[in-house]
Amino acid sequence: MKKVNINEKFGLIKELWTPKIIGELNGQDVKLAKVKGEFVWHNHTDEDELFLIIKGSLKIDFEGESVTLNEGEMLVIPRGVEHRPVAEEEAWILLFEPQSTKHTGDVKSDLTVDKFEKI
Amino acid sequence: MKKVNINEKFGLIKELWTPKIIGELNGQDVKLAKVKGEFVWHNHTDEDELFLIIKGSLKIDFEGESVTLNEGEMLVIPRGVEHRPVAEEEAWILLFEPQSTKHTGDVKSDLTVDKFEKI
Repeated sequence: MKKVNINEKFGLIKELWTPKIIGELNGQDVKLAKVKGEFVWHNHTDEDELFLIIKGSLKIDFEGESVTLNEGEMLVIPRGVEHRPVAEEEAWILLFEPQSTKHTGDVKSDLTVDKFEKI
Repeated sequence: MKKVNINEKFGLIKELWTPKIIGELNGQDVKLAKVKGEFVWHNHTDEDELFLIIKGSLKIDFEGESVTLNEGEMLVIPRGVEHRPVAEEEAWILLFEPQSTKHTGDVKSDLTVDKFEKI
């Protein structure tokens, strides 16, 4: 049985917008990412996605509204809902989503990660 | 879009060992629980279970070893693995597991919760 220390794992992450897998269960991934700046608008056709903020703040833009998440706050984004994460300052986030989830949905961008690394 | 503040939700929880649902996605539940003392030995036949410690420490006993999780640490317990959570002092934990997960597996105990409340 091997426990995972979330802050230690964040210490291994150098790139922005590049989620790393820190756990797997029931066909789902637990991922960590450091983010700063604007991501691309996208959606996930078949996957609901959970964002939990470990450090900093993250604004998530939707069509017609925005939600700002602070440390210790989470949001579930239902499948099919177009969204764009934006972080003014660097934020550390935990993601929980199915292993089938594509990073930027069906959008291709310079930010797109095709295969998520396990750390 | 409604965000969830984890500490505010913990403020609503009065009972020990009584997980409350704070989010649902992809057939999985996100639950919070306050725990103190010894839980019962049990396993979940078909469900992997994630424990993340929000406050305090939680020891999880397995056959032949124990793992102590501190704040910001998590552990995935694979399906079928017998385990017993024990908290010397009150601890606040986040659980991530399939909606089919039974609280104490196939063990019936005074601590068993049959239906999880959403808060």
